[in-house]
Amino acid sequence: MATQGQVITCKAAVAWEPNKPLVIEDVQVAPPQAGEVRVKILYTALCHTDAYTWGGKDPEGLFPCILGHEAAGIVESVGEGVTIVQPGDHVIPCYQAECGECKFCKSGKTNLCGKVRAATGVGVMMSDRKSRFSINGKPIYHFMGTSTFSQYTVVHDVSVAKIDPKAPLEKVCLLGCGVPTGLGAVWNTAKVEAGSIVAIFGLGTVGLAVAEGAKTAGASRIIGIDIDSKKFDTAKNFGVTEFVNPKDHEKPIQQVLVDLTDGGVDYSFECIGNVSVMRAALECCHKGWGTSVIVGVAASGQEISTRPFQLVTGRVWKGTAFGGFKSRSQVPWLVEKYLKKEIKVDEYITHTLTLGEINKAFDLMHEGGCLRCVLSTDA
Amino acid sequence: MATQGQVITCKAAVAWEPNKPLVIEDVQVAPPQAGEVRVKILYTALCHTDAYTWGGKDPEGLFPCILGHEAAGIVESVGEGVTIVQPGDHVIPCYQAECGECKFCKSGKTNLCGKVRAATGVGVMMSDRKSRFSINGKPIYHFMGTSTFSQYTVVHDVSVAKIDPKAPLEKVCLLGCGVPTGLGAVWNTAKVEAGSIVAIFGLGTVGLAVAEGAKTAGASRIIGIDIDSKKFDTAKNFGVTEFVNPKDHEKPIQQVLVDLTDGGVDYSFECIGNVSVMRAALECCHKGWGTSVIVGVAASGQEISTRPFQLVTGRVWKGTAFGGFKSRSQVPWLVEKYLKKEIKVDEYITHTLTLGEINKAFDLMHEGGCLRCVLSTDA
Ligand SMILES: NC(=O)c1ccc[n+]([C@@H]2O[C@H](COP(=O)([O-])OP(=O)(O)OC[C@H]3O[C@@H](n4cnc5c(N)ncnc54)[C@H](O)[C@@H]3O)[C@@H](O)[C@H]2O)c1
Ligand SMILES: NC(=O)c1ccc[n+]([C@@H]2O[C@H](COP(=O)([O-])OP(=O)(O)OC[C@H]3O[C@@H](n4cnc5c(N)ncnc54)[C@H](O)[C@@H]3O)[C@@H](O)[C@H]2O)c1
Ligand SMILES: [Zn+2]
Ligand SMILES: [Zn+2]
Ligand SMILES: [Zn+2]
Ligand SMILES: [Zn+2]
Repeated sequence: MATQGQVITCKAAVAWEPNKPLVIEDVQVAPPQAGEVRVKILYTALCHTDAYTWGGKDPEGLFPCILGHEAAGIVESVGEGVTIVQPGDHVIPCYQAECGECKFCKSGKTNLCGKVRAATGVGVMMSDRKSRFSINGKPIYHFMGTSTFSQYTVVHDVSVAKIDPKAPLEKVCLLGCGVPTGLGAVWNTAKVEAGSIVAIFGLGTVGLAVAEGAKTAGASRIIGIDIDSKKFDTAKNFGVTEFVNPKDHEKPIQQVLVDLTDGGVDYSFECIGNVSVMRAALECCHKGWGTSVIVGVAASGQEISTRPFQLVTGRVWKGTAFGGFKSRSQVPWLVEKYLKKEIKVDEYITHTLTLGEINKAFDLMHEGGCLRCVLSTDA
Repeated sequence: MATQGQVITCKAAVAWEPNKPLVIEDVQVAPPQAGEVRVKILYTALCHTDAYTWGGKDPEGLFPCILGHEAAGIVESVGEGVTIVQPGDHVIPCYQAECGECKFCKSGKTNLCGKVRAATGVGVMMSDRKSRFSINGKPIYHFMGTSTFSQYTVVHDVSVAKIDPKAPLEKVCLLGCGVPTGLGAVWNTAKVEAGSIVAIFGLGTVGLAVAEGAKTAGASRIIGIDIDSKKFDTAKNFGVTEFVNPKDHEKPIQQVLVDLTDGGVDYSFECIGNVSVMRAALECCHKGWGTSVIVGVAASGQEISTRPFQLVTGRVWKGTAFGGFKSRSQVPWLVEKYLKKEIKVDEYITHTLTLGEINKAFDLMHEGGCLRCVLSTDA
């Protein structure tokens, strides 16, 4: 390609400071170095983790930065030694890397690859501990190793999943975060069995994907809990069979659920990021075996608590990151499942805008009717 | 037997009030009713749960009562319809019942039988919600459905394990609580695999049984943590390979362990009952897969807490009651393992006294050198 080895100047939405509107800037994107891949991002969605960091709630958040981690694009060029992908490949950037070689990858017990974390955790690339983004020489930090709110981004080769070129990128970009997180929380982390009673706290994209995962796993009852009753109609389409609004009850929500299920649920999922709901999600589990999975990301410094007796009497407390999916090996598999119509994706997309309208997209996230807003970057 | 159908008057150690020395009294033990078994207790050990309730820390503790739940004896007579055991059978009373029929037993997921809990939780027998113990007509509460600090006790038939009559009752009485709890925490609850790194907080009987369980499971490193350095010599005999005394370190103990193990342990066990140690036990686990099991019983009202990020990044928090063993089916199997010298029992017995010396036995529990004190009841 003509741009290979060259600095590319393109549009990106830069977060200069927490809580200040993003600014579309002309950004210089350096060529990929050894082990790196430059990707032309075509579509990117917004996830609450972007809003979380943008909102200044992430103590590790570094500014200025380019946010975004749920996207799809095409490889523009690759750095030295990269064999995983080549220019022209359709890809989904993955904030969870998968190197296949580190202690984590080799354990077979987790998807939390450790290869590039030391760099992605502080907004830079591994090889030289520097950013590939700059504006007139001033570096702009990377975010989650993905930075997809840009027409071009540079990622580590272990952080990019090559997918079927037949897949529509404006849809499968969602397979970069929220949908796999929910499905995987059920399939990989909780391992819900047929006949189980499931409770889902929070019916946003993640909670609805949990519902879909639970439905495909054969759950007998899928109880959706949300303070916004408008969520229920949508939720039914994703498999939720019963709806509980905590505001309709005097009793603590865990007690409401225990009563409703003759002793508690088999599996519960917290998909909000609220520590008191995390406690309720654990305590509504059935004695002896109920398992609660934390999916939501709480504000920094907040803590969960419960009486240890809850665990001594058989409840299990877990959590999940990216639903336990190994990114490079399993995102392509999820794309195939989507193409075979085995999992929903289109149904989560409630809005489409352009990168230039990104601040409007952030506003939309706070509206009840919004699940995912997909931005095209070519505007 | 001559006593069948008759009230038996025998010696028992009665806890009249929390924290007041137990008193050896002549107690009337009513004959077993339908579904009940009267057992002549020959040997009983003391466990911290007895001390916990005696000390007034158990909000559900009822007084006056007859404590004790780690014992062995011989069936004296059985009530109507009892087929599980017959007079003369050697038995271990089980505070965890196993009916085989309730929702819990049938789940295959837990040992927490629900059949008689409503009665044993409030110190009475199921059939008439009354106690079988009295002194001159004044009822004395049962405890944990076992009340083994008595020459005779009455238990539900689902709460008694029939064991090999060749087994020495003065030893296998320990298989009624502490030893199975530790072994089962490893084998059933955590399912420790060969090669694992294990941390054990608290090296009393329960912690040492965890060590033995971990050793037989093939753990590569078994790190014992105790504030009493004298525990280490004994602990070595049970499989502990390294010893850490939190008092020797400035850093929080979780950090000491993470440093010692290049990232954390695979499994940790809290065998003390201290909520801040429970937190440390979780947080010393390896990211991605470390599993922490709470075995210790905390003072009532106390809560555990941590940052949810600990779970989102793959740690698992669990607990165990009686090590997850199904009592009636598995205690006899543990007795066989002891007879085949596959598990230790004798090594936990540091003191032997008589029922009449029970207050001395309670005092001994606070001494570093005491693991289990076994009382003979025939004194
Ligand atoms: N662990 C991971 O890997 C991972 C990945 C993606 C997202 N997340 C997190 O998952 C969470 C959910 O993401 P999302 O995009 O679905 O969010 P969302 O905001 O679209 O959905 C949250 C839902 O929770 C409901 N809610 C809020 N407070 C509530 C309460 N007290 N009780 C009941 N319902 C309540 C809201 O009405 C909303 O419907 C976020 O915290 C996000 O950061 C985690
Ligand atoms: N879950 C169950 O089914 C079950 C069954 C039996 C016993 N238990 C509980 O298990 C716990 C252990 O029982 P045990 O009989 O082994 O008790 P124990 O008192 O003999 O042993 C406790 C050990 O912990 C050490 N310790 C105390 N504070 C410490 C600290 N801050 N840091 C490190 N070490 C510390 C003590 O020195 C002692 O060696 C008790 O809480 C008991 O009630 C639970
Ligand atoms: Zn996300
Ligand atoms: Zn890796
Ligand atoms: Zn005990
Ligand atoms: Zn049962």
